[in-house]
Amino acid sequence: MDTLSATFFALADPTRRAILARLTKGETSVTELAEPFDMSLPAISKHLKVLEHAGLITRSRDAQWRPCRLEAARLRDVHEWLDHYRKFWEESFDRLDDYLKGLQKKEKKSHARKRKS
Amino acid sequence: MDTLSATFFALADPTRRAILARLTKGETSVTELAEPFDMSLPAISKHLKVLEHAGLITRSRDAQWRPCRLEAARLRDVHEWLDHYRKFWEESFDRLDDYLKGLQKKEKKSHARKRKS
Repeated sequence: MDTLSATFFALADPTRRAILARLTKGETSVTELAEPFDMSLPAISKHLKVLEHAGLITRSRDAQWRPCRLEAARLRDVHEWLDHYRKFWEESFDRLDDYLKGLQKKEKKSHARKRKS
Repeated sequence: MDTLSATFFALADPTRRAILARLTKGETSVTELAEPFDMSLPAISKHLKVLEHAGLITRSRDAQWRPCRLEAARLRDVHEWLDHYRKFWEESFDRLDDYLKGLQKKEKKSHARKRKS
């Protein structure tokens, strides 16, 4: 699997995204990571392996508790890929905005008409 | 599967990302989409279903050739999620930058020393 695909695959799971969110607060042990989830340690370890394979986290080889650490560089690659599409979502939200403004205008006119009659 | 997970899963494949890239040039038929890929129509249709399920594309029900069209709003959701991590990748690249500048300084010093001796 190419790097970008591995990254997207790793992000396609709410538990793995929650692990990344937890790691923004600092490096931590697997036991600590597992606490908020109703999951076994092997299940968490499996998720960590997917994240590690994608380069989204690293695990220290030195310390006995092998802390996990966020590696944000891969997210930057996703951001760069995504940036090619920015103008497309901006355009689609501009269109929605125009549509909603059009609706508001119509409503105001119809209210004004009702008040007159 | 939650929406964000479905989006990430859909993006975790180079063919599906290439389809999205093609659709930035305008809506197109499945046959046209399949052309640049060495893939059968059913294989392409399977990819389109994953993209459609994630809300990344829509397929017209009106026209007989059922053109596919990029829907970029979901990519905006990914962008919003990603933005929480921006400061982490910026920090990690700043650290790399400092490290490389440190290396350059050391090299310059060692060159200067060599020239003197």
